Amino acid sequence: MGISLQNFKLLLEYDGTAYLGWQRQSTGRTLQGTIEAALNTMTERSVTLIGSGRTDTGVHAMGQVANFRLETRLTAGVFLKGLNSLLPSDIVIKDCLPVDEPFHARYDAKSKIYDYRILNHPIRAALFRQYAWHISKPLDLEAMRRAALHLKGEHDFGAFQGAGGGISNAVRNVTDATLSEKDSRGYVVFRIEADGFLRHMVRNIVGTLVDVGLGRISPEDFKEILLSRDRQQAGITAPAHGLFLTEVKYQNGR
Amino acid sequence: MGISLQNFKLLLEYDGTAYLGWQRQSTGRTLQGTIEAALNTMTERSVTLIGSGRTDTGVHAMGQVANFRLETRLTAGVFLKGLNSLLPSDIVIKDCLPVDEPFHARYDAKSKIYDYRILNHPIRAALFRQYAWHISKPLDLEAMRRAALHLKGEHDFGAFQGAGGGISNAVRNVTDATLSEKDSRGYVVFRIEADGFLRHMVRNIVGTLVDVGLGRISPEDFKEILLSRDRQQAGITAPAHGLFLTEVKYQNGR
Repeated sequence: MGISLQNFKLLLEYDGTAYLGWQRQSTGRTLQGTIEAALNTMTERSVTLIGSGRTDTGVHAMGQVANFRLETRLTAGVFLKGLNSLLPSDIVIKDCLPVDEPFHARYDAKSKIYDYRILNHPIRAALFRQYAWHISKPLDLEAMRRAALHLKGEHDFGAFQGAGGGISNAVRNVTDATLSEKDSRGYVVFRIEADGFLRHMVRNIVGTLVDVGLGRISPEDFKEILLSRDRQQAGITAPAHGLFLTEVKYQNGR
Repeated sequence: MGISLQNFKLLLEYDGTAYLGWQRQSTGRTLQGTIEAALNTMTERSVTLIGSGRTDTGVHAMGQVANFRLETRLTAGVFLKGLNSLLPSDIVIKDCLPVDEPFHARYDAKSKIYDYRILNHPIRAALFRQYAWHISKPLDLEAMRRAALHLKGEHDFGAFQGAGGGISNAVRNVTDATLSEKDSRGYVVFRIEADGFLRHMVRNIVGTLVDVGLGRISPEDFKEILLSRDRQQAGITAPAHGLFLTEVKYQNGR
């Protein structure tokens, strides 16, 4: 019996603190590069890992998805155990599944969910500080919610596109954009789901929403900024360490 | 008007990962040493910080308490802001209060609460991994709870005393010892309150409770180990990075 071509889907969690983002680079530690190195060690081959999309330097993931194709007799269970024993402690494979040959983690992604965590408390945190943006002044969450309502639907998000994004069509469809209540320790989570995201889009949206929360601009101003499609109008780019790629959705719940 | 002697109480949070524990040492980075250095910078004096007790290398705190006495015109609010601007990101002063001159963070402590966080999930975590002990096999939490019941009350905890503790009287009064339910991500928290703790006591108790949870020993065996007062009987010392000094209680809720 010959060795057949297999396609495996990986569900990934990582702490982005120590990485120059997802995409492999000739120098520097990246997530794709580190996971490919582990795959190469296991298979003694040069394996290409296809991610659902890039995450930037310092951005975390709870539910990044990737796939790789390979002629192998190794099973998904063997890859799950083997990779987790080879990978450093800040990357973990949460699941490995055999999928149909055509499955492509990037092209087949229907939508993505990002969470952005803010610690809104007069005092910064020492514990868990790697995983939230600290804002010491009180945020008007209700104003931020009114502003966030304008994000829903199909819009040109050019105003929130980071420099170097290099994408000419900035139209995306946002299907969810909600702000949680503040929990007992002061954490607030902004969740956004869309069919795709521009470079720095979530972080630019969060930076501008925080301007609303601090009363620097109104929810109506936020809407005007969105409609302007002009990056100069928007607020600062929120820091990477509050951002989490939470889920990537595929058709048929795959 | 002369400068009067002041006594300030600090409420501290820290991430113990990068520290050789609380106590100042001639070489090596410690919490007491780092905070004293910040106090010395602010006051241009040599200030001694009195902690409620030591925490070991790698142990975290959400609610460590310390005090320092000093002739100064600086107010508590100035110390709170000034220290937080001088301290590294893994230490934060959550509160600073003027207290009566006799207040002593160690001698006056009536009880302490420690939390130990366990991640009980087949797959390890990449995010928040610094803050829990990962146990991949399923734990019998009900058996662990039955075992933990035996901890309550006044006992000689010699069986759970770490080597080098050097304390002849190992009798302590445990007023609370409870295990939470497992949350949706697999986290379980063991909470213990006592009038005092021996060296490595919480971590040795947790290591032995996990032996119960894994079915290696029974809740009755756990009771026998406690009664034996023999350290050789107990389980391994659970790792430091799951342990948090959560609260120190003083009389009059001070």
